[in-house]
Amino acid sequence: MMSMSGKFKLWVIHALLGLECIHAAEPHHDATDSGDAGAQKMKRVIEEEHEIGFIQTLLVHPTPISVQQSDYQTIEVYESDHFGKVFLLDEALQLTERDAPHYNEMLAHVPMMEYLAVQQPDEGGTINALVIGGGDGYVTSELLKYPNVVIDHVDLDKEVINVSKEHFEWSSAWEDERVNLIVGDGAAFVREQVEKKKKYHVIVQDASDPFWYDENGEKIILPSHVLYDMKHFDGIYALLEDSNGVFMFQAETYNIPSNLEEIQTWKKSLEEIGFDGVRYGSIAIPTYSTGQIGFFVAHVSNKDMVCKSDGGVCTMDLSAGLIDWTVVSSQFEKIAGTTKYYHPRIHRSAFDLPFWVEEAIYDSKE
Amino acid sequence: MMSMSGKFKLWVIHALLGLECIHAAEPHHDATDSGDAGAQKMKRVIEEEHEIGFIQTLLVHPTPISVQQSDYQTIEVYESDHFGKVFLLDEALQLTERDAPHYNEMLAHVPMMEYLAVQQPDEGGTINALVIGGGDGYVTSELLKYPNVVIDHVDLDKEVINVSKEHFEWSSAWEDERVNLIVGDGAAFVREQVEKKKKYHVIVQDASDPFWYDENGEKIILPSHVLYDMKHFDGIYALLEDSNGVFMFQAETYNIPSNLEEIQTWKKSLEEIGFDGVRYGSIAIPTYSTGQIGFFVAHVSNKDMVCKSDGGVCTMDLSAGLIDWTVVSSQFEKIAGTTKYYHPRIHRSAFDLPFWVEEAIYDSKE
Repeated sequence: MMSMSGKFKLWVIHALLGLECIHAAEPHHDATDSGDAGAQKMKRVIEEEHEIGFIQTLLVHPTPISVQQSDYQTIEVYESDHFGKVFLLDEALQLTERDAPHYNEMLAHVPMMEYLAVQQPDEGGTINALVIGGGDGYVTSELLKYPNVVIDHVDLDKEVINVSKEHFEWSSAWEDERVNLIVGDGAAFVREQVEKKKKYHVIVQDASDPFWYDENGEKIILPSHVLYDMKHFDGIYALLEDSNGVFMFQAETYNIPSNLEEIQTWKKSLEEIGFDGVRYGSIAIPTYSTGQIGFFVAHVSNKDMVCKSDGGVCTMDLSAGLIDWTVVSSQFEKIAGTTKYYHPRIHRSAFDLPFWVEEAIYDSKE
Repeated sequence: MMSMSGKFKLWVIHALLGLECIHAAEPHHDATDSGDAGAQKMKRVIEEEHEIGFIQTLLVHPTPISVQQSDYQTIEVYESDHFGKVFLLDEALQLTERDAPHYNEMLAHVPMMEYLAVQQPDEGGTINALVIGGGDGYVTSELLKYPNVVIDHVDLDKEVINVSKEHFEWSSAWEDERVNLIVGDGAAFVREQVEKKKKYHVIVQDASDPFWYDENGEKIILPSHVLYDMKHFDGIYALLEDSNGVFMFQAETYNIPSNLEEIQTWKKSLEEIGFDGVRYGSIAIPTYSTGQIGFFVAHVSNKDMVCKSDGGVCTMDLSAGLIDWTVVSSQFEKIAGTTKYYHPRIHRSAFDLPFWVEEAIYDSKE
């Protein structure tokens, strides 16, 4: 039993009292005293998970560094004391400079390492990668750490890219001649490339949430949903090289029941399509709701994968056959010192989930 | 880049507008419309981490199931829609029924498994365990899953125990004749047992936070601090059996800089005292701040431990010598099906931390 200080809570309530009444006429630009007498008033970035009655709030400096209205959304950048710059789309948190490496390094290095561990390109050979979404440029910048990669990067919103170029160091990725940036619809791009019979070794989909539940408990389908349906996954499969092409995508949190249901559905869909080694991995990241976000990684073909029973639950134990960790370790030495979150052990560990989560995702009767 | 829905945020701000102004005269019992027209109004349990500008809020039903004032603190139990019963001390969240297994199973099974993996008791031999804190009874109930354990359990607040007995199923642990419950000061109890030359095989310290930072950035020492000082750790060391006695204690989150500093200090202290295999492990738990809490586990004597270099960081790789995982797996089979979070792979994975955290805790020059 851990005890946080109750004194904090008292203070927050008092601070809130100030906040809400003062700014009743301006709910979108709520600012409150941070508690320090005379200190800068702070704006609150609020993420509400209505489904589980959970709210996360980040205090940022009240004056935005940047506000842009694109055809699709409002794009804002704020400064914070602890988390560095904070990036919002339609008032929803996308990333903070401080903990973005947790998410973006895993989205880039897990699929690249799993590709390299099984399928090392010939000396001088090219790795063709596709990045769908990820308009901040971070995933693309991480992929560029592998010298022989070339990247098609497709994102819908030109303004997101422009704002990122101005405010985030990793957006220099787009200046690299190995990157081909396409502004457009990711799902449509995948369909076009399938028709052109294009092939990729690694595909990373860094998309926004496909749905949410409103305050009446209604499931609302969001635009990104097209990036999570069976037809789109079919297209991804067709685009991947037959010899161990690897697909990686953002796959929500297991802490929200409706998300966990989708995780189960996505796993079934991917396996029906024919993907091998379909596994859900977890990333610890404090500024995403409940401190946890996950991904799926799936291979086009990897028959060496071992399903190992452990405590009655059949899960994929990476250390038991799927991946040659000595290869991953030697590949990692080439980029060691450049990562803040990723290393081979945390890659392996990402697939070790709470017992109840493994039971939900992997049928224990398998 | 993940997108949460901005629509939620808008709604929350409106809800807050209602909350704070209406209840200005009663800040301790703030209740707000949950967003459902005509739905039950909800109370907010708020955890503020002023140091990093981060706030976590849980919605609970407004009428407490129980409110007790003890000599030490206010003890409250609320009901929530998703997290089950919610247990507060001085308005600070202690646990929720839904995710308490994450924390409590790790605090019990990691040290027991590490003890058993190295030092299996003779057939019919007794394992002497000491639990310090943990007045909800959960850690004690998990330890009782090992048939030959006997437990001294010391907690300061009789009322916490009484409230837990009434509201939490795991508190039936105290009815087990293998448990000797002592109501008293944990630090004093340790000193007394040292004088009596008592010995334990496993000691688990499930204590509240030792300090906090107030709104002026001042470090405030809290009563539990006596359970985190060098003298107390010395006493723990003296109480443990020389042949692989194991110490486990709650050790805060790496996401808050002052906590990470303490983590570094505790590691040094434990090693100075003579503990072996001193490692910080991580637990994913949504209702603790930033979704992450950690523990230290330390052995009195385990010379087989291997320090393995991985990407320039020297860390303890459990799979490389400290623990015989085949023993852990066979021990786990005896309790399999009784845990919601713990299994041997997540035990092993708990020690794989983000690169920047490993660098901070384990000197890469080691």
